[in-house]
Amino acid sequence: MSLDLSSIQAAHARIRPHIIRTPVLTNARLNAACGGQLFFKCENLQKAGAFKARGATNAVFSLADVEALRGVATHSSGNHAAALARAAKLRGIPAHIVMPSNSARPKIRMVEAYGGKITFCEPTQAAREAACARIIEETLATLVHPFEDERVMAGQGTAALELLEQVPDLDYVLCPVGGGGLLGGTAVAAKALAPSIRVIGTEPAGADDAARSFRAGQRLPLTSVNTIADGLRTTIGEPNLALALRLVDDVVTVSEAAIVAAMHMIWDAVKIVIEPSAAVPYAAIMERRLDVSRRRVGIILSGGNVDLDHLPWIAKKGTP
Amino acid sequence: MSLDLSSIQAAHARIRPHIIRTPVLTNARLNAACGGQLFFKCENLQKAGAFKARGATNAVFSLADVEALRGVATHSSGNHAAALARAAKLRGIPAHIVMPSNSARPKIRMVEAYGGKITFCEPTQAAREAACARIIEETLATLVHPFEDERVMAGQGTAALELLEQVPDLDYVLCPVGGGGLLGGTAVAAKALAPSIRVIGTEPAGADDAARSFRAGQRLPLTSVNTIADGLRTTIGEPNLALALRLVDDVVTVSEAAIVAAMHMIWDAVKIVIEPSAAVPYAAIMERRLDVSRRRVGIILSGGNVDLDHLPWIAKKGTP
Repeated sequence: MSLDLSSIQAAHARIRPHIIRTPVLTNARLNAACGGQLFFKCENLQKAGAFKARGATNAVFSLADVEALRGVATHSSGNHAAALARAAKLRGIPAHIVMPSNSARPKIRMVEAYGGKITFCEPTQAAREAACARIIEETLATLVHPFEDERVMAGQGTAALELLEQVPDLDYVLCPVGGGGLLGGTAVAAKALAPSIRVIGTEPAGADDAARSFRAGQRLPLTSVNTIADGLRTTIGEPNLALALRLVDDVVTVSEAAIVAAMHMIWDAVKIVIEPSAAVPYAAIMERRLDVSRRRVGIILSGGNVDLDHLPWIAKKGTP
Repeated sequence: MSLDLSSIQAAHARIRPHIIRTPVLTNARLNAACGGQLFFKCENLQKAGAFKARGATNAVFSLADVEALRGVATHSSGNHAAALARAAKLRGIPAHIVMPSNSARPKIRMVEAYGGKITFCEPTQAAREAACARIIEETLATLVHPFEDERVMAGQGTAALELLEQVPDLDYVLCPVGGGGLLGGTAVAAKALAPSIRVIGTEPAGADDAARSFRAGQRLPLTSVNTIADGLRTTIGEPNLALALRLVDDVVTVSEAAIVAAMHMIWDAVKIVIEPSAAVPYAAIMERRLDVSRRRVGIILSGGNVDLDHLPWIAKKGTP
């Protein structure tokens, strides 16, 4: 694993023309509620609506011309898929995307809008990998894995790189954990730039493979997951866990009720649209899974791709 | 009327420590849909969730100490109320707020949270003014009218001042029109800084007193209004209309369906929470009420205070 600060800085230089330097927002009401100072890095305002644009763009623009011509391929439940389709379109090459059949509709529409060639599969890790392998055999496209790829992780780390430029003297950086691409990139960037920062992964209790694996020191996939946070249902990758064990301070879990409450609270107070996965770090603060009082806390809001016609707090309550 | 660029600049210097220099966001999908370049000035991300923080803060911090001690009073359906309560709290003086009994609940809660002393009244202009006059007689508080006050208009004009610093070479500036405080301040700032900019007021067809008054050259209040855009139900003020007749290029109207569609589109694409009133300018673009193709268009998104549990596109559809 050669992922280090310089590869993240190189990624940043490479992708800068194609991504947004997202703003960092603060909110007095949320600060008062937890007693700390929260700094929200708004990757929901990123191109294609999620931090995934960073990693996918870095991977696509890292390819040699001869490789690039054959296109790229991946399997993803959504945000990486849209991000890769967008990056491929920017470079003018094909993107082959394997998506589980239960992917959120807005995410499918985004992949289509960016011109990605979609193949649907059963919603299991095995089916995704098999379908993707078949496509790569046929097309000789380059696999851009959603989180185990070093170029992807380097790209994801650029969010923390910007956050640390935008906000000095953070005590914590929190991000959600799915496959661990964002957590890995974030940890490498943060620990290299400011070793005293505590990097905390946050995960739904209903998909807590990363927390279990982190404690056990080895990868412990779950047989089933149950969470509204559709971006976090995947199992943490092998290199991602290795990075986490080396650099991450803790992985904490949150309830589904807290995810919905945190999502509602951020929409209501900060006036931004975030998806359930992005609410998980603030849910950890609401549930007091870590003590942030008098601390400066950076939170990477991972994305904003949500179906506005099906909001969890309204579905739960019935017709308004 | 002595409102001019220098009073807006003085307002900006006065309120700068207390407000947010809100970001300007762009979106490729919305640009593609209209063929122009749209620049959204995000006053939904402003303190107290609306541009109203600018005018109210300028008014409160313009008061001499001896005046300020007696407090301030106003009547408002919501955002000005919360903004005035907040500004008074910052200065440590009382704020007496008359609110119509049908004000949106999140707006009432905000006024309470900022320590405003609320008096509810019937939802008519006459009842609001009578209740407010009574309170002023009793307390000797200073009236801070939501839009006819020059200090308020100067404060509202600071949003356009920032927008023109943030985005060069705009062809249009669009904003919603209720009482005309934002439109007046915007027109003075924009025309002074860049006379070629076209300033367009946008208004719901169901509360089109400003459009009618603008065309007639005199104030024509409506006997009833019917719009989801709760911030725009008031009648345009006398000084506000005079300013509009002198400086504004046009006032256009939009349907209720377009307001809801524009609101949904901005939430979905830009990933921000805006209230119905803030969606009115983009609704005018969706309904092709002006031709923005190949134009650079600044849009002041006026606020983000909306009841997340009652969203118009979900109420219309029934249970999801």
